[in-house]
Parts: sequence; C-alpha cells; structure tokens
Amino acid sequence: MLRHLPSLHRLVGELGQLPSVGPKSALRMAYHVLNSPESFSQNLSDSLRCARSQIHLCPICFAYTEDDLCRICQDDNRSRSLICVVEDPADIDPVESSGAFWGQYHVLHGSIAPLDGVGPKDLKIQALMDRLLYLKKQNQPVMEIILALDADLEGDTTVLYLSKILRENEINVTRIAHGVPIGGDIDYIDHRTLGRALENRVKV
Amino acid sequence: MLRHLPSLHRLVGELGQLPSVGPKSALRMAYHVLNSPESFSQNLSDSLRCARSQIHLCPICFAYTEDDLCRICQDDNRSRSLICVVEDPADIDPVESSGAFWGQYHVLHGSIAPLDGVGPKDLKIQALMDRLLYLKKQNQPVMEIILALDADLEGDTTVLYLSKILRENEINVTRIAHGVPIGGDIDYIDHRTLGRALENRVKV
Repeated sequence: MLRHLPSLHRLVGELGQLPSVGPKSALRMAYHVLNSPESFSQNLSDSLRCARSQIHLCPICFAYTEDDLCRICQDDNRSRSLICVVEDPADIDPVESSGAFWGQYHVLHGSIAPLDGVGPKDLKIQALMDRLLYLKKQNQPVMEIILALDADLEGDTTVLYLSKILRENEINVTRIAHGVPIGGDIDYIDHRTLGRALENRVKV
Repeated sequence: MLRHLPSLHRLVGELGQLPSVGPKSALRMAYHVLNSPESFSQNLSDSLRCARSQIHLCPICFAYTEDDLCRICQDDNRSRSLICVVEDPADIDPVESSGAFWGQYHVLHGSIAPLDGVGPKDLKIQALMDRLLYLKKQNQPVMEIILALDADLEGDTTVLYLSKILRENEINVTRIAHGVPIGGDIDYIDHRTLGRALENRVKV
C-alpha cells in the first residue's frame, strides 16, 4: 500500500529514524497521524521546528538552553569551584535529581570512541580546558572536577584521557563511584560490577 | 530540566501522544531531534503536514488515497462482485499480502463498541448499504461480503450487526476463519482459539 501513497511512505521513513522506532512502529505512528484531527499533526510539526530552532547550547557548559546562558550557569547560589563533567545534556537531569550536587556542569557531547572515529577534538574538551584557564585567571579556580561518565569502554577511555590532562594542569579529578545499586540484590549483580564494588570498597 | 525549556517540554508532550510512546521514549526522541542536524526536524515536520494534507479517504471504499479514487477501486481487473469489509485502512495490506483475495474493500473505520460510545452510525455502515444498493441498481450486484474483522468483542458485535442487516437485504455474508495459525503449536494455543478451531472444523 505504501508505494501507492508516497507521502505516507515518506512519513514512515522519517518516523523510522527516531530512536527505537522500527518500520512497524513507524507505520502505526503514521496511521495514528492520519486518523487524528489535523491539529495533532500541525502541533507536532510546529513543536519539532520550534524546539530545534529555539534550543541551543549554553556557551559556558554546553547544556541545552533557550536563554543566553542555561539556568545553572545563571544561578549565583551554586558553587563555581566544582564542575561535574557529563557526556550528554540528558545526563544533567539524573545528577540534579540526586540532590547531591550543587556545582556547575560541563557537557562533552559524547565520549572518546576510536572505533566510531570520535577523538578528543570532536568533544568539548578544549572548551573545558579554556573554561578552567579562564576561571583561574579570574582568581576563581576550580577545586574539583567530578567525572560522571558512562561505565562503558568509551566512558573509561574518556576518564583516562581527561584525568591525565587535568592532572597535568594540577586539577583535582574524581569519578563517581560504580558499584552495587541501592536496593540491588548481590545474587543478581554481574561480576564486573561486583568486581568494581569490591575494588572501590570504603571503610565503615 | 524540562520546565526550563518550554519548547522541549511541548515537543515531549506532542511526541508522547504517538502510540506506544511513553514519557521516557518521548524525551529520548526529543533529545535525538535536538542532536540531529536541523534538516531532520524540518523533513519530519514537513512530511507530517504533507501526509495529513495530501492523504484523504477514497469516496467508494474509504481506504486512504492521494488520488480521486484508491488504486483498488481504480483497478478494472479486480472482481466487483466480492467486497471484503475491514475495520481500518491498515487492515487492507495484510489481506492483500495473503494473495487470496481479488475483490474490492470497504473500510468501516472502527467497530461497534457500545462501552466507548461507538454505534453503527459512527461507522461507514450506511455508506456500505448505499454502495450495495447503487451496485444493484447498476446491475452489478455484489455476490458475497467477506467480513475480515478483529476476533475481539467489538469485532464479534460488528459481525453480528452487519450479518443481520446484510441478510435482510439478501446478501451472502461470510466471515474469515479463526483457528490455529499455520505453524502454530497446539500446546501453546489459548483455549478460546482452539474452541473456535474445533467448532469451525472442515472435512478433509
């Protein structure tokens, strides 16, 4: 049927590019659009354009913002001597929800992945170094950089790289703890996580 | 974070109205839109508007079409004395793929669901009766109506209703068989399907 309806075919193709949407889901979504009042497709169409054009990166921390600076960089009540480095803008929300962090952020927009051709220059690493240098010159040196990167191969590579260049600049670097989740059953934890939890054991 | 980004909040709300997209998936899709080149959101936005405005219902069978008539109603090689009644336009594709049907279609756009307030007048049932009457007057009477409706409560109700009014008009009505799927293991078939398969057994 799709080949007889080119505009439906195109819509299914576009929807199928969204994350975790396969051809069947895309077709079901497209039929939903056709069955819904015209206002639904118009609103979705407008909000796609509007979000993409109004949201840009904060020039300091590279999080998403609709203003000149993001709300965290604007907030004078937050510590400026503590920076949490994350891979993606979406990673800020969970750290904020933990309520355990009150500093600034720096978004790398990815992690070092040589197999995918992503090197340090493709990430906001130079921008982080420039930011640290600028703060030092302003007599507001950063006391600690907390790396909250994913616990995968790319995350580990990025942690190694960052910790090396940051330590060369005499900056204190830490990484969030990896171990057994709160409420997690030791029976069901994979051996790599348990290995890390044993390695990073803390005195009680 | 969403409350500080109203246009992202709106996009997540709109995406969350698509079928089987929850708040987490909608957020992931929205971040994908922000991370992708602007052309992606523009193309998706255009194809949503374009599909909704160019696709309309075929005035004879109520399937989706971009032309005056759908390709099946246009096709002179297909039997006009056989009509397959389906609930939704999306149901035409699987019947076509079976290769076992060479007649016309009629899309009801739903099924009788009293609990949801959907009665016979909300479906294309009167249009079906008008179509049959018109064909009879044109000396092209329909020999058989095949009901290919879902095997659920609403489908069964619709089958009962349609078979009653069609038989009153002396039209031959059949329903597609429900039973054990080809390749299905009898061990794993639910008892209602197996009951129906026994009831509708055929001589070998």
